[in-house]
Amino acid sequence: MVQPVDLPRNEAGISAALGELRQQFGARVQSGRAIREQHGHTTTWIRNQPPDAVLFPQTTDEVAQILRICANHKAPVIPFGVGTSLEGHVNAAAGGICLNMSEMNRVLAVHAEDLDCVVQPGVTREDLNTHLRDQGLFFPIDPGANATLGGMAATRASGTNAVRYGTMKDNVIALEAVMADGAVIRTAQRARKSAAGYDLTRLLIGSEGTLGIITEITLRLHGIPGAIMSARCSFPTVDAACQAVMTTIQYGIPVARIELLDALQVRACNAYSKLDLPEAPLLLLEFHGSDAGVAEQSETFAEIAEEFGGSGFQATASPEERAALWRARHDAYWAALQLRPGARGLSTDVCVPVSQLAACVAATQERLQKDGFVAPIVGHVGDGNFHTLLLIDADNPEEVARADAFIGWLNDLAISMGGTCTGEHGIGQGKRPYLERELGSATRYMKAIKAALDPDNILNPGKVLPD
Amino acid sequence: MVQPVDLPRNEAGISAALGELRQQFGARVQSGRAIREQHGHTTTWIRNQPPDAVLFPQTTDEVAQILRICANHKAPVIPFGVGTSLEGHVNAAAGGICLNMSEMNRVLAVHAEDLDCVVQPGVTREDLNTHLRDQGLFFPIDPGANATLGGMAATRASGTNAVRYGTMKDNVIALEAVMADGAVIRTAQRARKSAAGYDLTRLLIGSEGTLGIITEITLRLHGIPGAIMSARCSFPTVDAACQAVMTTIQYGIPVARIELLDALQVRACNAYSKLDLPEAPLLLLEFHGSDAGVAEQSETFAEIAEEFGGSGFQATASPEERAALWRARHDAYWAALQLRPGARGLSTDVCVPVSQLAACVAATQERLQKDGFVAPIVGHVGDGNFHTLLLIDADNPEEVARADAFIGWLNDLAISMGGTCTGEHGIGQGKRPYLERELGSATRYMKAIKAALDPDNILNPGKVLPD
Repeated sequence: MVQPVDLPRNEAGISAALGELRQQFGARVQSGRAIREQHGHTTTWIRNQPPDAVLFPQTTDEVAQILRICANHKAPVIPFGVGTSLEGHVNAAAGGICLNMSEMNRVLAVHAEDLDCVVQPGVTREDLNTHLRDQGLFFPIDPGANATLGGMAATRASGTNAVRYGTMKDNVIALEAVMADGAVIRTAQRARKSAAGYDLTRLLIGSEGTLGIITEITLRLHGIPGAIMSARCSFPTVDAACQAVMTTIQYGIPVARIELLDALQVRACNAYSKLDLPEAPLLLLEFHGSDAGVAEQSETFAEIAEEFGGSGFQATASPEERAALWRARHDAYWAALQLRPGARGLSTDVCVPVSQLAACVAATQERLQKDGFVAPIVGHVGDGNFHTLLLIDADNPEEVARADAFIGWLNDLAISMGGTCTGEHGIGQGKRPYLERELGSATRYMKAIKAALDPDNILNPGKVLPD
Repeated sequence: MVQPVDLPRNEAGISAALGELRQQFGARVQSGRAIREQHGHTTTWIRNQPPDAVLFPQTTDEVAQILRICANHKAPVIPFGVGTSLEGHVNAAAGGICLNMSEMNRVLAVHAEDLDCVVQPGVTREDLNTHLRDQGLFFPIDPGANATLGGMAATRASGTNAVRYGTMKDNVIALEAVMADGAVIRTAQRARKSAAGYDLTRLLIGSEGTLGIITEITLRLHGIPGAIMSARCSFPTVDAACQAVMTTIQYGIPVARIELLDALQVRACNAYSKLDLPEAPLLLLEFHGSDAGVAEQSETFAEIAEEFGGSGFQATASPEERAALWRARHDAYWAALQLRPGARGLSTDVCVPVSQLAACVAATQERLQKDGFVAPIVGHVGDGNFHTLLLIDADNPEEVARADAFIGWLNDLAISMGGTCTGEHGIGQGKRPYLERELGSATRYMKAIKAALDPDNILNPGKVLPD
């Protein structure tokens, strides 16, 4: 909750880099106030730190040219997808040049026979899936927002399908990236596996633009399942729902999605999405497989749910009903904001071992009540990951301080349970104080890697690493 | 094939470090010739470069103490599991101290409810699976040899189950490691996913002991499938078998194993394992799932096989028949050596996109025949990975040179097809010349990371990175 500070600016370097960039790219270097502020961080509680200029590169060569100019003048460079990150990832804490990657938005190749494709970083996940649909393929990672695949790789995104398909780290085969010195590298070839050298692919995934600018992504694809079934089930308590989730995972049921909404969130969704779900803790599920497979999974889950007091179990193979259910889930954030009009939404992102989930959610609910917050809970509970959306009056310092204390308490609780302060939103600016609490001296070696690959700290400075 | 050179030795440093280690560990510092040679590389064509001494640490603290002493004197440290690697990974190219991790062999925790466990690096995969069996759990990665889990993590091992369960990079949640300066780090917590900071877990996996010594591993486990079915099917040509594999993968059949043996390898296995398989290209398969699921998978595969001229399809749910089949597969290396008694076996390890597999194997077979090699082929073909075992008279320089030329040709062919020179054996000493051919300027940044984390190059020098 502590607002990010402005880092020292290299005025001379930024100015010299801007001069050269204008020579090279002319009016494509945009520095109007509106566009700069759009590219600072505006969607969350974190205050806006706009860059000095915004450029929309069109090729890897252009990105490399820009990086060479900026490296030469030690001017910061901040990559930007569509700006849906939540932790200040795209703020220009030390000024500099924002690279909006949205014009690098081509699907370069689909190798259906290898279940992979090669895309530019500005392709969004929805655009990719539209592109793939005719070939019976899909890319499963779904963080909710229609984010770019470059942004998703840079932040190690996951979302509702991760319980079955993993996160971005599991679904990227190779990257092309421009490094801080302007060199273009390729981290791996296109084979499904490799034991060749250090895993630079995984090092760049989740590095949040601080180690290199991703310019091409080779993604693993999956066949669209022969059968998809979605289901919902209400539970008497959040604890009962979590117990059902734990048992489902332990049984090894390959659920594709298993999402929790607490009663408050269900109420919000009913109002926002015109639904009439029972206002009790709810699990939403999706099963992928053959006709027989999804039926088997759904039946087994129904038995588990019953064991924990689940009620109103409904399963459907109708694509329309499924779409409505998941649209409501994806709109949960907007629905929740309506619980307190005018409030700021402040999302936590802890992820704990699944065995700790029920205890962690219960402690969270108790503390939320004690602290008097309006704060619905949703979660990718199959992974042990859940979000509390604190609805805050950002102009009330007491409330802000209380939220700050709550977030610190929750992150520490998750860490003490063997979990993490961030399952999927990343560190950005907002969680920097917690990285060291979570990983201790390992952060020293992260800093050493950063210093080795970006000695002048020009790539997205002020992110990820603690001071 | 080029034999490794001896790197410059820091005689004074090694001697000083040995002195301090003897003070600290007494007779546990072993420097007899036999034990030193056992810990240099002896199982492959690569010549032995024994360390100056061997130590069997028992705790992470001991590893840290040893590293601090060796760092202080810039003496090399080489970690050792059971020595089953194939590319000279454990040779002491610049002398130094070998750490045999086999006494750190405890399973520290099994969290059945979270499907994970925590082990020391000296636990072997067979020991772990024996330990887990009563709980209905297993660890799927199976490189054939009964390797240690530390060695498997360090080399990013995979093997027969990777097509379904992935490689070590997909099945390690967190590591504890001792870094070159003697500091102990933990790369992640125990949550199933995390977006917290750089992925040091994946950076250490596959770093072959050059960035840190792994002292603890948190592994992802899987429930033992309710039903397992194995199958075999012969094909008129290797090409037909490969086409069947490609189609199987493209259909999205979740085969757990799909292994190719060419006719020569089948002949060798028949002789060695007293089998009477048709001496034609053979696929061995395993299906995991529910009873209905494995039956469905097996039937779908049988239809695909028939389409490509497959014959003699046999499926079985009998554990005994399955064990016999896979024992024969695991003994393929020893069986192959009998094709030319006294010869050295020299294994290639290319991995290509599955769509290129048939072409790559066909070109390989043609060249093998032209070059006059006795060289059976086996492969984890579901991943596009196959091994050619060249049976060589190591005392015949002409033959050695011919083998060397073949290996270079095959690695380059795989790279030109979008593949890698090593699907699973790693770089070690033997493949260093190929890493740069495969990944070009990316190797510069690997070197920068190595220099940042191990500035005095004491961790397993002379491995992975090109000069």
